Amino acid sequence: MSFYNFDNNDAEAEDQHYMRLALAEAEKALAEEEIPIGAIVVCKNRIVGRGYNLTERFNDVTAHAEMQAFTSAAQTIGGKYLRDCTLYVTIEPCVMCAGASYWTQISRIVYGAREEKRGFISKGANLLHPKTVLKGDVLAEECAALMKNFFAKRR
Amino acid sequence: MSFYNFDNNDAEAEDQHYMRLALAEAEKALAEEEIPIGAIVVCKNRIVGRGYNLTERFNDVTAHAEMQAFTSAAQTIGGKYLRDCTLYVTIEPCVMCAGASYWTQISRIVYGAREEKRGFISKGANLLHPKTVLKGDVLAEECAALMKNFFAKRR
Repeated sequence: MSFYNFDNNDAEAEDQHYMRLALAEAEKALAEEEIPIGAIVVCKNRIVGRGYNLTERFNDVTAHAEMQAFTSAAQTIGGKYLRDCTLYVTIEPCVMCAGASYWTQISRIVYGAREEKRGFISKGANLLHPKTVLKGDVLAEECAALMKNFFAKRR
Repeated sequence: MSFYNFDNNDAEAEDQHYMRLALAEAEKALAEEEIPIGAIVVCKNRIVGRGYNLTERFNDVTAHAEMQAFTSAAQTIGGKYLRDCTLYVTIEPCVMCAGASYWTQISRIVYGAREEKRGFISKGANLLHPKTVLKGDVLAEECAALMKNFFAKRR
């Protein structure tokens, strides 16, 4: 757990700070040769959940970064609703993760880079909970670069 | 693991047979005072995955019956793709579970009763994998009755 206080006027700096921590999670995935996506859940300036993609290690499509971050946040908080929480995730969530966020009623989702093909936004339907505010394009270049480098090396 | 051989001409009886097993999973959820939804994954007449809703016990919105059935099927099969598999689930899947099924590339999803409000179908977008065939209304009354009785008692 770590605390970090921000001036309320500097919301963008705060989002970038936490996105860097999500990027650090993505780097852990990269180190394990997983698709490098990372996520953290922040509640009142406190990190309550973390996760990085582990679908290969666990042989399990449900082991996305966001899913693990939701699960760990719920354990930390002691309740399954993540109101007053923000999910920071390096890549736009997929339909599964957007659907999971619906059930958590999370207050805010901040993603780094768009995922045009597999992301939930292109589905057209609003899959998020009405209480969830969505923000994108936070450190998008860094987030996308991790992915591009990963797939370039695999080719 | 159990086997059960069916005449190819009696696909409906086969679906009903497996739906009864999904209902048996839902009964386990009911016994634990969880919303009674159950699921199994069948691969070539073999049950390779099971699950029932455990969101309250685990304090975790991701602990839906289908998610656990996908995870257990992947462990049984030793791979994360569930091609040649059918998911039987007592209630129409939500967006999260539909999104998870996308990643598994499962061949078929058979559900019992519609879930007009929280099910993925009402979202309008096709959230399933192009390879996934969807069938509903198998033992729908039994599946819905479990849910109705559960919520009636809670009021």
